[in-house]
Amino acid sequence: MNNQCHEGGSMNDYTPKPEHKFSFGLWTVGNVGRDPFGHPVRPALSPVDIVYLLADVGAWGVNFHDNDLVPIDATPAERNQIVREFRRALDETGLVVPMATTNLFSDPAFKDGAFTSNDPAVRAYALQKTMHAIDLGVELGAHIYVFWGGREGVETDAAKNPVEAIKRYREALNFLCEYVLDQGYDLKFALEAKPNEPRGDIYFATTGHMLAFIETLDHPEMVGVNPEVAHEHMAGLNFLHNVAQAWEAGKLFHIDLNDQYPSRYDQDYRFGSRDIKAAFFLVKFLEDVGYDGPRHFDAHAYRTEDAEGVKDFARGCMRTYLILKEKAARFNADPEIQALLADINADDAENSQFLGAYSASKATALKAKAFDREAMGARGLRYERLDQLTVEVLLGVR
Amino acid sequence: MNNQCHEGGSMNDYTPKPEHKFSFGLWTVGNVGRDPFGHPVRPALSPVDIVYLLADVGAWGVNFHDNDLVPIDATPAERNQIVREFRRALDETGLVVPMATTNLFSDPAFKDGAFTSNDPAVRAYALQKTMHAIDLGVELGAHIYVFWGGREGVETDAAKNPVEAIKRYREALNFLCEYVLDQGYDLKFALEAKPNEPRGDIYFATTGHMLAFIETLDHPEMVGVNPEVAHEHMAGLNFLHNVAQAWEAGKLFHIDLNDQYPSRYDQDYRFGSRDIKAAFFLVKFLEDVGYDGPRHFDAHAYRTEDAEGVKDFARGCMRTYLILKEKAARFNADPEIQALLADINADDAENSQFLGAYSASKATALKAKAFDREAMGARGLRYERLDQLTVEVLLGVR
Amino acid sequence: MNNQCHEGGSMNDYTPKPEHKFSFGLWTVGNVGRDPFGHPVRPALSPVDIVYLLADVGAWGVNFHDNDLVPIDATPAERNQIVREFRRALDETGLVVPMATTNLFSDPAFKDGAFTSNDPAVRAYALQKTMHAIDLGVELGAHIYVFWGGREGVETDAAKNPVEAIKRYREALNFLCEYVLDQGYDLKFALEAKPNEPRGDIYFATTGHMLAFIETLDHPEMVGVNPEVAHEHMAGLNFLHNVAQAWEAGKLFHIDLNDQYPSRYDQDYRFGSRDIKAAFFLVKFLEDVGYDGPRHFDAHAYRTEDAEGVKDFARGCMRTYLILKEKAARFNADPEIQALLADINADDAENSQFLGAYSASKATALKAKAFDREAMGARGLRYERLDQLTVEVLLGVR
Amino acid sequence: MNNQCHEGGSMNDYTPKPEHKFSFGLWTVGNVGRDPFGHPVRPALSPVDIVYLLADVGAWGVNFHDNDLVPIDATPAERNQIVREFRRALDETGLVVPMATTNLFSDPAFKDGAFTSNDPAVRAYALQKTMHAIDLGVELGAHIYVFWGGREGVETDAAKNPVEAIKRYREALNFLCEYVLDQGYDLKFALEAKPNEPRGDIYFATTGHMLAFIETLDHPEMVGVNPEVAHEHMAGLNFLHNVAQAWEAGKLFHIDLNDQYPSRYDQDYRFGSRDIKAAFFLVKFLEDVGYDGPRHFDAHAYRTEDAEGVKDFARGCMRTYLILKEKAARFNADPEIQALLADINADDAENSQFLGAYSASKATALKAKAFDREAMGARGLRYERLDQLTVEVLLGVR
Repeated sequence: MNNQCHEGGSMNDYTPKPEHKFSFGLWTVGNVGRDPFGHPVRPALSPVDIVYLLADVGAWGVNFHDNDLVPIDATPAERNQIVREFRRALDETGLVVPMATTNLFSDPAFKDGAFTSNDPAVRAYALQKTMHAIDLGVELGAHIYVFWGGREGVETDAAKNPVEAIKRYREALNFLCEYVLDQGYDLKFALEAKPNEPRGDIYFATTGHMLAFIETLDHPEMVGVNPEVAHEHMAGLNFLHNVAQAWEAGKLFHIDLNDQYPSRYDQDYRFGSRDIKAAFFLVKFLEDVGYDGPRHFDAHAYRTEDAEGVKDFARGCMRTYLILKEKAARFNADPEIQALLADINADDAENSQFLGAYSASKATALKAKAFDREAMGARGLRYERLDQLTVEVLLGVR
Repeated sequence: MNNQCHEGGSMNDYTPKPEHKFSFGLWTVGNVGRDPFGHPVRPALSPVDIVYLLADVGAWGVNFHDNDLVPIDATPAERNQIVREFRRALDETGLVVPMATTNLFSDPAFKDGAFTSNDPAVRAYALQKTMHAIDLGVELGAHIYVFWGGREGVETDAAKNPVEAIKRYREALNFLCEYVLDQGYDLKFALEAKPNEPRGDIYFATTGHMLAFIETLDHPEMVGVNPEVAHEHMAGLNFLHNVAQAWEAGKLFHIDLNDQYPSRYDQDYRFGSRDIKAAFFLVKFLEDVGYDGPRHFDAHAYRTEDAEGVKDFARGCMRTYLILKEKAARFNADPEIQALLADINADDAENSQFLGAYSASKATALKAKAFDREAMGARGLRYERLDQLTVEVLLGVR
Repeated sequence: MNNQCHEGGSMNDYTPKPEHKFSFGLWTVGNVGRDPFGHPVRPALSPVDIVYLLADVGAWGVNFHDNDLVPIDATPAERNQIVREFRRALDETGLVVPMATTNLFSDPAFKDGAFTSNDPAVRAYALQKTMHAIDLGVELGAHIYVFWGGREGVETDAAKNPVEAIKRYREALNFLCEYVLDQGYDLKFALEAKPNEPRGDIYFATTGHMLAFIETLDHPEMVGVNPEVAHEHMAGLNFLHNVAQAWEAGKLFHIDLNDQYPSRYDQDYRFGSRDIKAAFFLVKFLEDVGYDGPRHFDAHAYRTEDAEGVKDFARGCMRTYLILKEKAARFNADPEIQALLADINADDAENSQFLGAYSASKATALKAKAFDREAMGARGLRYERLDQLTVEVLLGVR
Repeated sequence: MNNQCHEGGSMNDYTPKPEHKFSFGLWTVGNVGRDPFGHPVRPALSPVDIVYLLADVGAWGVNFHDNDLVPIDATPAERNQIVREFRRALDETGLVVPMATTNLFSDPAFKDGAFTSNDPAVRAYALQKTMHAIDLGVELGAHIYVFWGGREGVETDAAKNPVEAIKRYREALNFLCEYVLDQGYDLKFALEAKPNEPRGDIYFATTGHMLAFIETLDHPEMVGVNPEVAHEHMAGLNFLHNVAQAWEAGKLFHIDLNDQYPSRYDQDYRFGSRDIKAAFFLVKFLEDVGYDGPRHFDAHAYRTEDAEGVKDFARGCMRTYLILKEKAARFNADPEIQALLADINADDAENSQFLGAYSASKATALKAKAFDREAMGARGLRYERLDQLTVEVLLGVR
């Protein structure tokens, strides 16, 4: 009963609850385990089966690409039948659909991109497909609509003009924002960046590039980001910093949680299974700032797993999140840690007067001030101690 | 006389000229070859010596950090004497100072950041140092002022709040924009991103993050970016795509040319010495769009080199740029390449009608249109051929 | 007619010929363009079709995994029929089969490894499958047998003992060496390393690890390596250095040529399409040392390509190799380059006497010698110039 | 008193003791915090000061490069005086010198390598310097002698023949082995690999390459490896797998513990501060197999630290090791984990009969056996559960 130790006698409970807003995509627990070198290892599950599986493990929401739910060549009647059955499963389980998205990457038509394709027919078809997919998402209750442009890139820069690609992507998003407004949908867009794979290079490689791009749209207020742990880690970037910049800009509309070894193929591992420390700082941030959107696990089970292992995977994602949430509370309550942080962030009226908004007199005074460079340089900041204490909180020994 | 071959009898000339706007920082050809594991291998050159060296190899401009020119502990009299001598060397050689910047990373005072330091005294001192450095840059003719926040980061996210860091960086830039306006300086700021080194993680890791950040400033019109080849390559990102996004946003105020093996320590190799193909697409882009700012080589000679090798290095940077510029012209003039590109980008009136600005009727028509997905997917795009032709242009066999 | 320029009037010929020993796997030009996010874009070709395609583009050899040729569930009669048809195509085209290998990665049975699986049944089945595949390869003329253990790894080190894995892999290779000897086959083994993908980490991550492992086998003389450009580049390693170590050890039994951006998913790009300089040093090495084995292109066409593009891809691999071979000859004949190299490698009798085999008197004399450290450190090595000249040879301007 | 929880009432003790064999290099706690972009932040400590510091924090051993202890230009008298004082400090504190090594990278003389330099004078000088440094190390009690060839590489492969470099490195090691034998020293060599930095590429990039190279030496029995966490992580490799291969080959003579974000500059972080899970599997391995050599922390404090922070750093390295050692014991004692492992590794007499040493009859029987591929592929291996339990052991919640 180790958990008792951490709470002065009260048993911790890492059971997922609806208020945690844990969601999974149909494609995550439904992943059949195919990879570039191997055939599927698990039978495909129907969308309805997946809803029941997610309810069983304790999830709150389920997300989908249009073709996760409705095959690309379904007739309208088939589509409506599928939607009815899916809705019934949602109703029976209480699961919600917080987010939907479009598959603009699997079909050969999109092999050179969707919105950025050099082929106007492909661009037009991508718009059409997205409008239908938006309709589907809204019909099932989604209020967030994710765009991941997995094919919006190149293997050789001889083939596509990168400025033209940006303009095309903007044109598409502007069109679709207007479509949403025109339909009266209550829907926001969340753009998801990835540096590469399946394309050699994908445009808008990071959350930073997406944030910059959003400011150039006709309706920036409708558009935010959906950062994904694995995608920033593929570029060796600090995910927390990406999330913080998005949050500070009011653009953290959704988040994709998983794990990944840096500078490798897209692994989509169970959340918290690879870089425990990065996962901790992320959870701490989301909880500290009060992010209240979905915690979406965009990951899948190892290819060694059968149906039971898929449930192990899904349960592990949520349980590790909750353990790390408890660690964050412990960090925030640790007297030695907080004393170090208070010392690091101590106020300094003498110098603070020079900060803040500019004024000519402030500048003049500041230019004339004598600083003791050596004293500033000699001060020890105790970050080794602070980091060691953090590691010890994580390891459960304080 | 191979060059004759490429021009129907006319000799190519890869000699740098002022109109090419090739510039070097004092710290580049002045680099003494110290690294984390080794002592200096070359004697330090005075700023005046460097100006003459750069004139000798044919450069147009010279850039500096404040302390490249004026030691951090110089008296005002010493400072003015140094400036007089430097200006005389500029006058005698005709070199210009297109850009200046602040060293906010070498002194121990900045060990935990300058504008983002947790210590208000350090933040105030960084503002002071930058105002003085701006004065110095402007005095010597600079119209572009670069900010590279080499220490604005962390080794552990326990030590600094990433949202607070963004706010502090913004506050500093807003202050300094006002200072420039207040002084009536004709000066623009260019922000330079780097993902890591010397800090474990540096905030605003890529040009994309900088572009997003700029839009949140009080005077975004004064602020652009200074992308550096090596810095984006350290994150394994496509540099051209970063430059293209900056250009498209009207924010390409300056550029740092060098080379780098991806996902490694900062190498600052001679331009075009490592990734020839990436260097080609970059030069082609800059020339095609008509970028008319400085081509700054932010690189240094291998540690194996003496003074003569430093000149070899500097000459090589410029010569390779000019060779690649000629390659770009050849690519643009190659009939087979241009035919492939024309085919790839062929107009398609039937589908183009659905693109462009949104209208309800366009959306309705588009939603109803039947697309031939299989035909779109089956079309061969000839990108292997196009890329092979590009490689052959580069290799000089067409 | 640019080529004329390089040869004093004689036209260069980059046409592949049998003496170049260019080979392709069935899986390379037969690749249908499926990836983790997309469906196939090209129809599957039969093995016989591929042989004719390769003959058409000028290849010399064709390699295969057992199941590229014979489906995993074929009956013996089906197998023999397939082999007959394939052999007829070989006979008609003159193509040879220099190498064969086993697919121990696609079937779900191998999801946790083949020779290193924790499951004895899987290990036994992998041995069986390999024996049958060796029989097939030998029957079709192969003298080299490649082992790529794509599944021999883990996603979590909790799951498999890494020492046990090494022992199991050794046991399997020892068994199979004995099998080859027992059958009297004229066949050598070539081990191919890869750091990761499709597994999180694959054992024996680089060619270096394989070379070390080989020395621990019962028949090291039968076993060498098959280094692959992309695989070492995925770990950010210098491929040439890996090939050189293998060559120096007498273990370069085969080589896989392709291209790859470092620290990413496995891209298998057209040879020489990505890192031109690395490709040049590799070709120069192979030609300079007189490597006379197959030049196998283990790559595939971009997913944007149709059947014609696949041929473009295959022709490009061979043509670029031959262009780079010509560049290597030019480098070797360039007087300035050779003068620099001669100077760098100049003999020095005074110091060479201390090198070579140890003797007590040599050690004593050497310990007493006075060296001029400063002079050694001050010498400029002209590597910037040497590298610039190399780049200029590559760019065709000298 | 959280620790009580984990041990049924007994207090855990993470205090370093001599039997743990924790050692630090003089250059680790003595690091002054210089980096490529910044000046030193801490005053230099004398070797004697460092010995007392290490004794104070509880270390067992201290290692050094020759010039950490004796300046490169010291006279024999100065050298002997320094050695006397150092030995006295050792005697007073009880610290031992388990390992010594040569600095063949800092001096400009070694800018293009030491044993692999193109300059025979440099190669001879490197041998001389190493012989003297070996004498020094042995005099102070070292039984392990590390070789890290930090400059043995290139920035451009035009400059050095990689085969020649291997031959030169071998010649040097053979010479030095003979020197050790000739002197009657009880000393083993441990070769340390690194992929790059400070050179663009360093020869023998990984522990695997070193293991392969060792087998080609005249006295392979005298030579093993010194794997370093950060160095393999710089290439994105699994460090445990490198250590396991070295151990299995009987070559794990020493180990360098620290931490590092993959695919970046050399960070040398506090052990266990970055990749907690990898550190855990490493400690578990070393303890499980009974490695009894030194646990050397080749790391240094953040540049934000003063003298007190350096102690925090050193204490943290050892404390985290001991916490992880306890976690390993907990993993080994966890009933659910052990049950999963037992199931995964269950014996299978039916199939095990086909494994092990080759015999013709075994091969014949095996070739004829019918395997149930589908059953093998369908089996769930529960690795998600196993990994989740591992994470929970690490997080202290079981």
